[in-house]
Amino acid sequence: MRLLLPLPGNEGFADRLARAGGGAVGALRSRQFPDGESYVRIEADVVGRIVDLVCTLAQPDAAFLRLAFAADALRDLGATQVNLIAPYLGYLRQDARFLPGEAITSRTFARLLGGVVDRIVTVDPHLHRYRALESLYAIPCQTLHAAPLLADWIKGEVPAPLIIGPDSESRQWVAAVADRVGAPHVVMAKQRFGDREVRVDLPDLSAHRGRQAVLIDDIAASGRTLAAAAKALALRGFVSPVCVVVHAVFGQDALAHLETVTGRIVSTDSIAHPTNAIGLAPLFVGP
Amino acid sequence: MRLLLPLPGNEGFADRLARAGGGAVGALRSRQFPDGESYVRIEADVVGRIVDLVCTLAQPDAAFLRLAFAADALRDLGATQVNLIAPYLGYLRQDARFLPGEAITSRTFARLLGGVVDRIVTVDPHLHRYRALESLYAIPCQTLHAAPLLADWIKGEVPAPLIIGPDSESRQWVAAVADRVGAPHVVMAKQRFGDREVRVDLPDLSAHRGRQAVLIDDIAASGRTLAAAAKALALRGFVSPVCVVVHAVFGQDALAHLETVTGRIVSTDSIAHPTNAIGLAPLFVGP
Repeated sequence: MRLLLPLPGNEGFADRLARAGGGAVGALRSRQFPDGESYVRIEADVVGRIVDLVCTLAQPDAAFLRLAFAADALRDLGATQVNLIAPYLGYLRQDARFLPGEAITSRTFARLLGGVVDRIVTVDPHLHRYRALESLYAIPCQTLHAAPLLADWIKGEVPAPLIIGPDSESRQWVAAVADRVGAPHVVMAKQRFGDREVRVDLPDLSAHRGRQAVLIDDIAASGRTLAAAAKALALRGFVSPVCVVVHAVFGQDALAHLETVTGRIVSTDSIAHPTNAIGLAPLFVGP
Repeated sequence: MRLLLPLPGNEGFADRLARAGGGAVGALRSRQFPDGESYVRIEADVVGRIVDLVCTLAQPDAAFLRLAFAADALRDLGATQVNLIAPYLGYLRQDARFLPGEAITSRTFARLLGGVVDRIVTVDPHLHRYRALESLYAIPCQTLHAAPLLADWIKGEVPAPLIIGPDSESRQWVAAVADRVGAPHVVMAKQRFGDREVRVDLPDLSAHRGRQAVLIDDIAASGRTLAAAAKALALRGFVSPVCVVVHAVFGQDALAHLETVTGRIVSTDSIAHPTNAIGLAPLFVGP
């Protein structure tokens, strides 16, 4: 039986993994000292065991040291292998030096995290220039795909859907979701200006009138892509789209802004969020 | 001329270092993306230069990744050496496993930070079981001492002082401060119960009646030691003590609590804080 040790905030996900047959949950206590330093204590017997730390990396700056402290303590205490289950893996977006002097944070983060755990399991990493996590991480990485779960949710909840992907890079992924749903799909053309400004162009949708548009995307950090798409759809006479995202990153006011222009917004539980509707645990357990 | 690059929040300290002759300040930009990840950009020419990153480590969990990103970017951009000026160095207190399963955070932090910068310069590290930073860090560490600056401040501001140290371990340090002030000194006996509870015992002070008690300590995280000492002094008929600390860590309500039982509270500028009154810059420049 695998031992799952959730970092603070990941207890719910670890419990769902355990209920799906993914292991037994042990106790890891962590708190902050009055001066803001972290304290970590392993309260499970780990001698000779493979341990899966469970920690989504949506707020990686706050989580990283705690994760490193836990991993080192586990090895000190006799664990034979320390893995990381990170349903959302952060620091993948700065994958090049876009402006002179920029830190390529994806590389540094991968080196540091790769020095802390032995293996990473994650879901749909937001890769762009890197073809696979292995071209960034020196440790084994297992990538799971939420597409079938997204498709099953759409099939069960949305009659006559039209699946719409965010950009041409997502075409293959969007097609796979649509195929499993048994619905048509299109992808948008997207241009990004800075962190928050985005422009989208929709293809001809005249063949899909009367269908319920379902926007799908892997992450929705600023929500601007989804919002721009929702506005473009309204101009074509479609009702408010359903939005289905894998990772509910949603910075600051993103969700509040989105809710004014879209219909139902749902996400997987890779990041705990009020929009969570699709549990990822089955992916980690396998068939 | 050395190049000083302050991380966010350390601009004031870097400017004071530069004014004292410690180098020229360059620009390092850092901000957070909507999803909480950090962005770092070096805006100085660093080719062939030794760079001193300036970053106090009072909130190390938030600062660590930014520091790593900056250091890696500097090397990518051609810096020959990347040092860290951390007037306060965190993660020194958990230096043993006090309870089973505890992470020894000092070791992990030292390994990680030692993999990120080439050299560390700090002031009065809060060492307990480690005799020197070199027994913890594998990279060169330079330790500076604030005692002369504390003494000079006391000499200039407090007539007829009695210097009081927090515990027997601090005796040598307290004696050195008192010697430079030209004042008598004593140390307390201290017992600690948990993070916040502390009991202190004062020695016989009858020979020092009429003097202004000055409590000195290296850090004041919870403030409980200083508060307990202030109460014990009041019982012996002393007026509210002046408190002089090196590192103004001051968690949460510590200062508000302290201000009800002590007189003036001052600190060095190792951590930016309203109590800062003693500038450390001269230490870094040397005679």
